[in-house]
Amino acid sequence: MLEYRTERDLLGEKKVPKSAYYGIQTMRAVENFPITGYPPHPELIRAFGYVKKAAALSNKEVGTLKKDIADAIVKASEEVIEGLLNDHFIVDAIQGGAGTSFNMNANEVIANRAIELLGGEKGEYLRVSPNTHVNMAQSTNDVFPTAIHISSLRLVNQLCDEIKKFIHTLEEKEREFHSVLKMGRTHLQDAVPIRLGQEFGAYRRVISRDLKRIEQSSNHLFEVNMGATAIGTGLNAKVDYIKKVVFHLAQCTGFPFKTSEDLVDLTQNTDAYTTLSSTLKILAINLSKMANDLRLMSSGPRTGFNEINLPSRQPGSSIMPGKVNPVMCEVINQISFQVIGNDQTITMASEAGQLELNVMEPVLIFNLLQSLSILKNGIHVFRIYAVEGITANIDRCLEQVERSVGIITAINPHVGYEMASRVAKEAIKTNRSVREICLERGILSEEELNEILDPNEMTSPGIAGARFIEGS
Amino acid sequence: MLEYRTERDLLGEKKVPKSAYYGIQTMRAVENFPITGYPPHPELIRAFGYVKKAAALSNKEVGTLKKDIADAIVKASEEVIEGLLNDHFIVDAIQGGAGTSFNMNANEVIANRAIELLGGEKGEYLRVSPNTHVNMAQSTNDVFPTAIHISSLRLVNQLCDEIKKFIHTLEEKEREFHSVLKMGRTHLQDAVPIRLGQEFGAYRRVISRDLKRIEQSSNHLFEVNMGATAIGTGLNAKVDYIKKVVFHLAQCTGFPFKTSEDLVDLTQNTDAYTTLSSTLKILAINLSKMANDLRLMSSGPRTGFNEINLPSRQPGSSIMPGKVNPVMCEVINQISFQVIGNDQTITMASEAGQLELNVMEPVLIFNLLQSLSILKNGIHVFRIYAVEGITANIDRCLEQVERSVGIITAINPHVGYEMASRVAKEAIKTNRSVREICLERGILSEEELNEILDPNEMTSPGIAGARFIEGS
Amino acid sequence: MLEYRTERDLLGEKKVPKSAYYGIQTMRAVENFPITGYPPHPELIRAFGYVKKAAALSNKEVGTLKKDIADAIVKASEEVIEGLLNDHFIVDAIQGGAGTSFNMNANEVIANRAIELLGGEKGEYLRVSPNTHVNMAQSTNDVFPTAIHISSLRLVNQLCDEIKKFIHTLEEKEREFHSVLKMGRTHLQDAVPIRLGQEFGAYRRVISRDLKRIEQSSNHLFEVNMGATAIGTGLNAKVDYIKKVVFHLAQCTGFPFKTSEDLVDLTQNTDAYTTLSSTLKILAINLSKMANDLRLMSSGPRTGFNEINLPSRQPGSSIMPGKVNPVMCEVINQISFQVIGNDQTITMASEAGQLELNVMEPVLIFNLLQSLSILKNGIHVFRIYAVEGITANIDRCLEQVERSVGIITAINPHVGYEMASRVAKEAIKTNRSVREICLERGILSEEELNEILDPNEMTSPGIAGARFIEGS
Amino acid sequence: MLEYRTERDLLGEKKVPKSAYYGIQTMRAVENFPITGYPPHPELIRAFGYVKKAAALSNKEVGTLKKDIADAIVKASEEVIEGLLNDHFIVDAIQGGAGTSFNMNANEVIANRAIELLGGEKGEYLRVSPNTHVNMAQSTNDVFPTAIHISSLRLVNQLCDEIKKFIHTLEEKEREFHSVLKMGRTHLQDAVPIRLGQEFGAYRRVISRDLKRIEQSSNHLFEVNMGATAIGTGLNAKVDYIKKVVFHLAQCTGFPFKTSEDLVDLTQNTDAYTTLSSTLKILAINLSKMANDLRLMSSGPRTGFNEINLPSRQPGSSIMPGKVNPVMCEVINQISFQVIGNDQTITMASEAGQLELNVMEPVLIFNLLQSLSILKNGIHVFRIYAVEGITANIDRCLEQVERSVGIITAINPHVGYEMASRVAKEAIKTNRSVREICLERGILSEEELNEILDPNEMTSPGIAGARFIEGS
Repeated sequence: MLEYRTERDLLGEKKVPKSAYYGIQTMRAVENFPITGYPPHPELIRAFGYVKKAAALSNKEVGTLKKDIADAIVKASEEVIEGLLNDHFIVDAIQGGAGTSFNMNANEVIANRAIELLGGEKGEYLRVSPNTHVNMAQSTNDVFPTAIHISSLRLVNQLCDEIKKFIHTLEEKEREFHSVLKMGRTHLQDAVPIRLGQEFGAYRRVISRDLKRIEQSSNHLFEVNMGATAIGTGLNAKVDYIKKVVFHLAQCTGFPFKTSEDLVDLTQNTDAYTTLSSTLKILAINLSKMANDLRLMSSGPRTGFNEINLPSRQPGSSIMPGKVNPVMCEVINQISFQVIGNDQTITMASEAGQLELNVMEPVLIFNLLQSLSILKNGIHVFRIYAVEGITANIDRCLEQVERSVGIITAINPHVGYEMASRVAKEAIKTNRSVREICLERGILSEEELNEILDPNEMTSPGIAGARFIEGS
Repeated sequence: MLEYRTERDLLGEKKVPKSAYYGIQTMRAVENFPITGYPPHPELIRAFGYVKKAAALSNKEVGTLKKDIADAIVKASEEVIEGLLNDHFIVDAIQGGAGTSFNMNANEVIANRAIELLGGEKGEYLRVSPNTHVNMAQSTNDVFPTAIHISSLRLVNQLCDEIKKFIHTLEEKEREFHSVLKMGRTHLQDAVPIRLGQEFGAYRRVISRDLKRIEQSSNHLFEVNMGATAIGTGLNAKVDYIKKVVFHLAQCTGFPFKTSEDLVDLTQNTDAYTTLSSTLKILAINLSKMANDLRLMSSGPRTGFNEINLPSRQPGSSIMPGKVNPVMCEVINQISFQVIGNDQTITMASEAGQLELNVMEPVLIFNLLQSLSILKNGIHVFRIYAVEGITANIDRCLEQVERSVGIITAINPHVGYEMASRVAKEAIKTNRSVREICLERGILSEEELNEILDPNEMTSPGIAGARFIEGS
Repeated sequence: MLEYRTERDLLGEKKVPKSAYYGIQTMRAVENFPITGYPPHPELIRAFGYVKKAAALSNKEVGTLKKDIADAIVKASEEVIEGLLNDHFIVDAIQGGAGTSFNMNANEVIANRAIELLGGEKGEYLRVSPNTHVNMAQSTNDVFPTAIHISSLRLVNQLCDEIKKFIHTLEEKEREFHSVLKMGRTHLQDAVPIRLGQEFGAYRRVISRDLKRIEQSSNHLFEVNMGATAIGTGLNAKVDYIKKVVFHLAQCTGFPFKTSEDLVDLTQNTDAYTTLSSTLKILAINLSKMANDLRLMSSGPRTGFNEINLPSRQPGSSIMPGKVNPVMCEVINQISFQVIGNDQTITMASEAGQLELNVMEPVLIFNLLQSLSILKNGIHVFRIYAVEGITANIDRCLEQVERSVGIITAINPHVGYEMASRVAKEAIKTNRSVREICLERGILSEEELNEILDPNEMTSPGIAGARFIEGS
Repeated sequence: MLEYRTERDLLGEKKVPKSAYYGIQTMRAVENFPITGYPPHPELIRAFGYVKKAAALSNKEVGTLKKDIADAIVKASEEVIEGLLNDHFIVDAIQGGAGTSFNMNANEVIANRAIELLGGEKGEYLRVSPNTHVNMAQSTNDVFPTAIHISSLRLVNQLCDEIKKFIHTLEEKEREFHSVLKMGRTHLQDAVPIRLGQEFGAYRRVISRDLKRIEQSSNHLFEVNMGATAIGTGLNAKVDYIKKVVFHLAQCTGFPFKTSEDLVDLTQNTDAYTTLSSTLKILAINLSKMANDLRLMSSGPRTGFNEINLPSRQPGSSIMPGKVNPVMCEVINQISFQVIGNDQTITMASEAGQLELNVMEPVLIFNLLQSLSILKNGIHVFRIYAVEGITANIDRCLEQVERSVGIITAINPHVGYEMASRVAKEAIKTNRSVREICLERGILSEEELNEILDPNEMTSPGIAGARFIEGS
């Protein structure tokens, strides 16, 4: 039989399961917010551990928190950081109250664990109080944004690691496919030749810019508002404490945190998050475009472009034997749509800030951390299960170049746009090759055609053999 | 030299060009809101004409407005309806103030034109006052929403006419292409055969549902809040007037308008607009998908799917001779993206309503009318310049069916999934046809294969010749 | 020590935990898609149970599936319906492959459970095969959309039940607050008087329309594409089976399902989902506006509007004693932002359909079911923890009406707009009441003022006591 | 009577008004795309002038274009830059074909004007050909993106100038209101005191970050793809030309343009635009939040917060005398919603790029330039007509601080959270002041209270008088 203890707060009392580290305010939040069924993101829980540890260390040093209590809080916070108490963080990812329930869940779990460490029983808040001790000199309004910064930064780092590996893979493909000539297409219509490697080079470059954008935007997160307390005026936080807490935060997490120059500003404005989310959205757009390209190029095998092959990852159909689908590309598309939708939610949450605080931060951070996580997870499997294993149908690609009419463009400067147009029209009408018609009509000699229609030449920026861009 | 007259309002006085029908409040709005440079939509201007005419007729009948003044206002309003005074509607499409500037622009133009009709000079507001006479028993907060309803409904009608013609064209194509067999594709990978006509049938059906959705959602607009005055309590509007004004509105416009059952509700809630915009967004999604399909099916000509041909509408490239692009599909995609973005703006504008009024209506209606207009315009040219002229490459389509591996699916029930899989694998590996391998291996006889692989059979819902759905 | 069995498919073999009901294809999907960490929605799992049961019953009746196998599949499917096997549905909510992994997860779990029921051991697929038996005459492309319809409809019903209760509560508040006079505000500026009950009436009406919109849009879901198999041509599905399967589906679920008139259409078009999602978005917009209004009206207590009181649900601050926040309103705002963002994701997923299939359905349904769930959950707690307990500060409300300048509007028709403006200006400037100035200046007598400024009169649509709308 | 000349292209011939500088391809585009009715943005027209001038100068220098023709093209391009030929740019803002119609409109206008300058008549394309001469060594696919860069950069500069002035105004208000003490609010509920100047400081800081974000993101636009021609391989563009054209572009425009390191990349990827649009969206979010705050703080005058006054810009109502609304804030909200919706359109347009080109650029740039323009215009009027003239109701603000319960927070560290809570509860219940109760109960002496409750102290980050942040 489940046993209970009774806890009290300003609004009355409530039974709490005896084994639970959380307390009455967590219970209230669970009752109030049975919304998504999702708990806080593990990195957000961890981040609260860092914040509470840094605050306890600082309060101890400035003398407002007794050593034994502080030490117990630090120890309990470290257990939170290690993920040992994750099961006790039970408030819903979407909640009213600007994150107060997250903060109180953390305060209660850490208080009760600290009480145990000090030899007491859960609920003996006179030993260690969630508000007075664990939350000392803090407000949800500085603690929660700071925890957002920490958790976001940790996930940004993980995401950027995956992006870097992905860029490396794209670069290898760029090199591997350097000599694979194929038709370029604009408007999905035959255009002029390109190298498959150049296409992967373009992917590499745009993703490299995404990496840079994300890194740059995450730099904003090194400024924190710890010490702001309720609205940025720092009421009830000592100057010494404010200085120390950011130092300890940096120590614990390894991030070069510094106190914001304007705590009022940072307590109410959420542009650091919209900026990060925007860069994730742009990454999503670029990934989705790339996934679409790969799906197009691998379309077929018999009735599509059939220029490249994606690795077979799973049977594609429960009814069509032998069918294999570009599932890793499709999951990238879907992740991208999710991230773009999440950015919309973040946009509205950010816009809804009022006066001294943005109370919509819980839904904002739920979406931001999800975007970071699914992009990281998606890029990982996209790389190892799809992009690394791409192969090219070299002969098919070359054959398409030679059959195409688009190469007529190279003849332009030699015979004029008018004559070139006439040849193109006839080629399309008669389904014959440009080369054939030019020869037959005596427009150009075989020698000239060999030179002009050399696809290697046609695919080097800067005509006539001179590569305009070295090392691209 | 430009001559001026001087006008006055509560905030002071201002010079107005002597030839202008608008007055001081319009001038203030022009000064305050030089935002987009776009004037009000012509249909919105026309709608104000209808509203002011109906109000004047009603006020005359209930005896609060003298006959001669009323008649002059009615005459001036009719000129607005005919578009004769459009040049004098100069306030910006995006403006603060919940549309008061639109309303005052209309009040001033009509007042001044009425003054002229009565033999006076513009600015002699003692004869006909913009507020007292033209705006009698009205507030922007009932006039503007009512004008939104009228202008939206007129554009909905025009849009629905275009959609109906478009559906008719799709039906013709469905019939024309009924016997064109081609490969169906899922995941852009070869699947099983389909008829080109079935694809156009699917387009027809989804667009027919769009038509129904738009028509249904626009029915909400027949409820108007005329008589609500400032906040729906009808302060200063007589009961008789309220009854009459909606009667006259219906008479003038031909729409079956009725007074809202709850004027407070309709003055503050904008769900009629978000509902209409949502149906436009869904139409946009479906059109964009169709345009994408047509671009895919017409891709090539030599290195793409090349199943259908779109009419040539303009040279596709300033550099590549002979290139023609699917420009009419592309413009449909872009219109769709615009409509989807507009719906986002409308969503935020609607959410920002507060208490008794939604002051964001100007930007809301700007986007709503734009969505209606560009969809109407886009579908018109898409139909006549693209869809009507589509032709099929019948031989190419059939050849692809025969070359495909996907038809193996039909063999499934006859030889088992396992055996079918082995045949499929070999076909893909050796680049040979399914039929060839089955024959060679003695898996099925030529007779059996002819029956099983008959593409006509394969493309009829319900196997073995029995069409499950008649007349589809 | 964890024991394993080995399973095989076209791409090779894999070890599966011996205790697992899922099999090799589920394992591949888990490997390929470690994206969100979220399993399928419980209602989606249940829906697969319904579909597989209906298919097995139908296949038994048309004679393609042996009775004992069919019965075992039916029994296993019923366990899925009851939620007994939820732990074995482990593929990620976001996945490539158009839902094939969901379908194969279901096929494998049901096959293995059926094998057990028939006395065999998991993995003995010769007894019951996931593809041949459980998936007989089916494709992911008809099974998954049908499961989407079932799960959406079940959640729609639950949501609509909550909305109905919510409307009832709003109606009670409308009645309760009928005689509470307060200032109406437009542009957040004092306008003219209104009754608090009228405001709740406006909420009731817009939410009632939302209910109707959601119900209507969900009617589309009664059409299913079971029998479409791969692309709607019904390849490999017998006509009799198609007829029976929809009958059994309706029987099992209680929904009046019918086969789509055009299976090709319904297999590729996702407008039923975008339509439903749009109505959820519009509900979200309206709820958010209402939540914003309640937060405004309860702002204070000392420095805000302070017209109403929301129930205290939890201490509002870890630092500010006595502070209580409108957390139930805030969670509604956040749910709304989430639903609006989800609609964006759904929009993009829908637009990305290509040719015969929309492969983005997994992310689409993930968002759609989430929107339905969180709205249902949110409205429930919003009703019981916030709206039901709202109380009005009647004296404060009335005092504000009497102090306001806005009531001058009612004097308009009696003294003219010009004179009224002068009184208004003086009242604002001198911070005195309109009544006072009118009396002092002898503009109106006390008797006249009592009549004209009677707030009861001012808040009834149709001036002079005649309620224009009966029973509103 | 309108006279015509006849022109020809690959698809046939067409009549062109004799006085028109545009030609047959422009006519085709006008026929194909009657969508929005909006012409290209004037800055986009100007940008084409710059591009064509730079190309002609370069072609002359590399010797492929004769001096007299080049000089005439340069002269005609300069007239385009000056806006003299704007009336002849008549293709619709939304169009299919990736901007080819914009480019051909420019080519034709400049060719015909150049022909005139050389003494010929419009249409004599043997003298100056739109394709061969004006478009020499160019493709729409490098010309149009380059024109996008130029036009965006010019508008970014104009926008940033407005933002700088706006920041300056905010700084002045920050200083002006430094000593205005008022209640801070979180969750719209009374929190703790703040200075009005601190609020304006927070606005200043976030807008300053917006400025930085926009400037940084626009730096990407200095890389152009001139010389890419059709798909980035530079087919038909000489190396020397590519070097020269970017030099001339930089000379003409004053922007430090350089050739992209990878022309293939820059021809197909549109992340420079999504990045810029994202920063505009974030600015929009922040502006909207600020406008909302100002509307809240100025709400009333009698039934709202009434802390500040916005300048009266126009009569607020056609029916309520004396009403003035925060119209300049409202227009900022609406501009913000428009920019956020535009970003959605841009997102979808960007994601829809395929392979070597993004053909959706016309709708993308239509939205991007609109966002830049309306933000620039909106901030200008917001500054001069709203923010500059804000005044504070100093007494009212201070009175609210003194009446508030929130100041109890400062007592926390002196008497404990428990005792403070009891005082807060009593104060709320009895509607008395915290000070009163503390004195009456003997909790703190008057002297202590004076020190602790000194609002100046309470609003300085870092307790006890020590300003933590100097000069903030």
